[in-house]
Parts: sequence; structure tokens; C-alpha cells
Amino acid sequence: LTPVGNTVSLQYSSGTHRIASWSDLTNAHPLPGPGIISGLAQIGVPLGRALILLAEMSSKDNLATGEYTRSAMRMAREAGREFVVGFIAMGRVDESEEDQKEDWLVMTPGVGLVAKGDKLGQQYRTPREVVLGSGCDVIIVGRGIYGIEEEDAVRAEAERYREEGWKAYEERLKL
Amino acid sequence: LTPVGNTVSLQYSSGTHRIASWSDLTNAHPLPGPGIISGLAQIGVPLGRALILLAEMSSKDNLATGEYTRSAMRMAREAGREFVVGFIAMGRVDESEEDQKEDWLVMTPGVGLVAKGDKLGQQYRTPREVVLGSGCDVIIVGRGIYGIEEEDAVRAEAERYREEGWKAYEERLKL
Repeated sequence: LTPVGNTVSLQYSSGTHRIASWSDLTNAHPLPGPGIISGLAQIGVPLGRALILLAEMSSKDNLATGEYTRSAMRMAREAGREFVVGFIAMGRVDESEEDQKEDWLVMTPGVGLVAKGDKLGQQYRTPREVVLGSGCDVIIVGRGIYGIEEEDAVRAEAERYREEGWKAYEERLKL
Repeated sequence: LTPVGNTVSLQYSSGTHRIASWSDLTNAHPLPGPGIISGLAQIGVPLGRALILLAEMSSKDNLATGEYTRSAMRMAREAGREFVVGFIAMGRVDESEEDQKEDWLVMTPGVGLVAKGDKLGQQYRTPREVVLGSGCDVIIVGRGIYGIEEEDAVRAEAERYREEGWKAYEERLKL
């Protein structure tokens, strides 16, 4: 294992969190290069776990763009589908025909039903924009839910996101 | 604060590690964009702490290169020297005359006295190559020290690195 691979395999298997023991899907930044995938795969594959690479981010002026995003895609392709199953991204990053055959999973942050504003340095898009407009498979909702105080209201709001996302997905299937 | 800034300011000030309470210098990846600097600055500046940005990495085929590295430099410049004081990098990333006036601190990983080999996906360079050849200010030694079993041997090896680094620094000053 590479030094990076060695570190992440320990973070993944051991420490306080023992992530690989309970997490089906884990995500990792491709920033340190392919060593991070092989380090995590060594722990995750025998346990039937899978990895998602962060190919893009939703925060303002982030650096996961252009060549960075293309390299993430390339790293995933070279690692193979046995372990890497998709991406955190703002849209379809599997642009080539060959990549599309692989049916990568795209999970998308920066989703909100109300707040479109940008005092927060984040560009929110609705579930419909993300799933129907950008072809993403899974919406990731942060502040839209965890910012709410009351437990029932949290549940109701999460349910709204789930419905909106699923409706947009069904609409996309009809295209 | 941005969502990213909010998260990192909590990681920095609270949690198990309460990093800002004891760490003079902390490093951060510029990947999420400038929000990460403002989030950390809000906690660190009042405590007299400082930040180092990871502009480059030593692991094989990592993505912190080219435009990524230039963006890290730009983010540091725009954040100002009150909080950001330098970089983790493989060489001088302050290439412009204007940047050089700032005298940024460059701290460099991937330093080894013996292992030059590359089964580890890492390119090791000697303290001399790094400090004299590439103009770095501080060497960061990982496996060269922590891989050793016996405590006295660890101390002796760390001392060797310190001497080699300082000798190269004095040599550089004479250039």
C-alpha cells in the first residue's frame, strides 16, 4: 500500500468510527490520487462495501472542476466497478458513451426546496432541477433538513424532499 | 458562514480534538473553495493561530497540480496574511515577484534519507534536494521516522533529518 493508502485503510477499518464495519457506501476525495482507492478497496471489497468519489462539490468557487473532475472519472474507470460505483457530482460526469454504459450512480449535494439565495456561498437547486434537469440519481439534502428544530417538522420536510425527488425521477424515465 | 465554513469551524473549535485550542499551525485543503478559510479564520484569528494551505501533495498521480495549485496560491493571497501564512507544497509555489515579497512558508512532505524507491507510490527526495534544490523552508518526514521500532533509534533518525535539513538551509542562504 502507498502511504496514503495505508492511512485511509486504517481510518476506514479502525479508529473510533470503524467505518467499514457499518457503512455500505463511503465517499472519498480523489485528490491524493489512485492510492486512496486501492487502500480503501483492500478493506472494503472483502466486506462487500462500495466507494463513491467526490468528482464535484457544491460550495462556491471550489476547485473540483474541469481537469480535476475528468481525472476523478478516469480514476474510477481505471479502478473498476468492483468497488467504485459512482460519484458525488452536480450532474452527469459520465459524459462519454463508454462511461454511460457503466451506469454510474450520481449523488448530488446543494439541494434545497426553498433557499435559492446565496449568502451561504452555496448554490441551491431544487430536486426537480437536479434529478430531471441534470440527470442525477440521488439528492443529498443538508441544511434543508437539519436546520429545522422540531422532530416532526424534520420528518415532514424530509418526506417532501423524497416525494419531489421521486416525482422528478419518474418524469425523467418517461423522457 | 458558508455550510463548509460552518462545518470546519466546528471541527476546528469543538469535537473530540478541539484543534484550535492547542495547534499553532493547522493545514487545510483549499478544495472546497474560500469558504474553508473564512470558517477557520473566524476561530483561529482571535486565538493567534495560523493556517497552511495544501497546494501540492507528494503522493503518486495526485490531483493537486497545475490550475489547482495556482488557485490555492490565489486563495491564500486573497485571504491575506493575517491568517494564511504558507503552503504544503513540493517547491516554491510563490512564483510571481509579488508573491515572493510575502515570504510564504513552504513545508514539504515526501522527504526521506534512504528510500528513493517507489513501490510506495511516493517519490522521496532528500532534505538537501528539498531545501537547497527546491527552496522549501520546512521538511515533513513521515515513514522515515515513524517506521522505526526502537525509541532511541527514532530519536537518532529524527536528529539526522534535522541536521541534514539545517545544513541545506545554511547552504541555501549562502547562494
